[in-house]
Amino acid sequence: MSTFNNKFYRRSRALESLLCVGLDPVPEKMPAGYNKDTGVLEFLSDIIEATRESAVAYKPNLAFFEAMGPGGLKMFGDLVERIRSLAPEALIIADAKRGDIADTAEYYARAFFEIYKCDAVTLSPYMGPDTLEPFLKYKDKGVIVLCLTSNPGAQRFEMSGNPPLFEEVARDAQEWNRKYGNVWLVVGATKDPALVRRVRQLAPDVPFLVPGVGAQGGDMKSVIECAGSNILINASRSILYGAVERDQTAVSAKKNAEDLVAEMRKYTKF
Amino acid sequence: MSTFNNKFYRRSRALESLLCVGLDPVPEKMPAGYNKDTGVLEFLSDIIEATRESAVAYKPNLAFFEAMGPGGLKMFGDLVERIRSLAPEALIIADAKRGDIADTAEYYARAFFEIYKCDAVTLSPYMGPDTLEPFLKYKDKGVIVLCLTSNPGAQRFEMSGNPPLFEEVARDAQEWNRKYGNVWLVVGATKDPALVRRVRQLAPDVPFLVPGVGAQGGDMKSVIECAGSNILINASRSILYGAVERDQTAVSAKKNAEDLVAEMRKYTKF
Repeated sequence: MSTFNNKFYRRSRALESLLCVGLDPVPEKMPAGYNKDTGVLEFLSDIIEATRESAVAYKPNLAFFEAMGPGGLKMFGDLVERIRSLAPEALIIADAKRGDIADTAEYYARAFFEIYKCDAVTLSPYMGPDTLEPFLKYKDKGVIVLCLTSNPGAQRFEMSGNPPLFEEVARDAQEWNRKYGNVWLVVGATKDPALVRRVRQLAPDVPFLVPGVGAQGGDMKSVIECAGSNILINASRSILYGAVERDQTAVSAKKNAEDLVAEMRKYTKF
Repeated sequence: MSTFNNKFYRRSRALESLLCVGLDPVPEKMPAGYNKDTGVLEFLSDIIEATRESAVAYKPNLAFFEAMGPGGLKMFGDLVERIRSLAPEALIIADAKRGDIADTAEYYARAFFEIYKCDAVTLSPYMGPDTLEPFLKYKDKGVIVLCLTSNPGAQRFEMSGNPPLFEEVARDAQEWNRKYGNVWLVVGATKDPALVRRVRQLAPDVPFLVPGVGAQGGDMKSVIECAGSNILINASRSILYGAVERDQTAVSAKKNAEDLVAEMRKYTKF
């Protein structure tokens, strides 16, 4: 069985890259020349085509699609198909941060894994391990659990308690991963490097999805030093919105993605 | 401004009810006689029409709509309109349990409050207070934050720490509510009554949304004794799936809703 993790390792090595491109479409922020009502998928396709030799994974965030109404979810489905055709080996992560009682979580798992055919989904661990199980049992799919996020308010609950909540989640993730083999953690790059190192210590086998490098201010060198190369580093805004005009979009996205990958290669052995 | 809380108090008193009807459509579980592909909205409309003199609020859970693909979200939008026309004073709670960094949460808030025009949304507090703010600032909308949920695994993180995480969330909710006036907490009825009482003590002014009575085994008398009448008690399965045949659906839903309301009235002064 070609599991999510196997696909990740294979593609990461083949491209010598740790790059995940976050696809967060905001019509008003698209370069001039894309139609704000009908040009979003075209814009995203241009980004994918320009970055497909750098991107190990693509991570569309559902919020941006839901804010477009039911048509946005149709577009999300079309986008998944578009990624499959433009970059067949790329991983597709639904950034959805869902979490509900198991009976209900079954339906979210069905939505993201069976209807929209994504390779992985992000989830909130707040409600406990039984709420993750409906996803974990899809052993060929990735289950990416919030641990230590990149936003300032993460301090309040994630870092509260002794041991802090994020350590409890990291510890459990190591166990879940031992059992199911498909667990990841979200670990923000904006945090004190000692905290990233702490998560790595508690969850040595668990790959990390790392947001916060770039626009949010996280440092790539430090992240790779603390977390190792068993990670995906996400970039969204710097790749999507680097161009002002449509005809510069592909060139800008390609260069920004390649620059990030070049930096990754400085600190990583593939 | 007619806030969510004012609408709640007004309707709860007018109906002498604390009932929230969870709308969790599972085509295969519908009574015989509804078309499993095209009859879902019709089925839900029958439920709403039968319960509109008992239900203070309706709470569709997004998981069930997302599992139907993009058409399910179109149906979710149609359902909201249907509730508005059949029960204009009823509150509509989008049970979505979302949570993301503030820049992204803006788009979820836009989706549920502006596109789908719901009155309230359920959210996960895991990532911290800054991730709730994009919702809180809609002061006429309700922001219903997970605190102590009804599932067995809630034990693991929500009840971990000293003070436990759910107490931290309850304490903060009291403050957020003082500032914004629109905060609720999810407090499961399946928990030790002492825990429900503890949340009430920490968040005396915050209304609770209470799942877990009925199918999940929670006790209504105990919940009302511990939490008071500033609550909505959710029932889903017992109301939706009490009938085997389509022509019994309305009768069964109406009776089950009225029985729950009669029980509420035994323990509550309106």
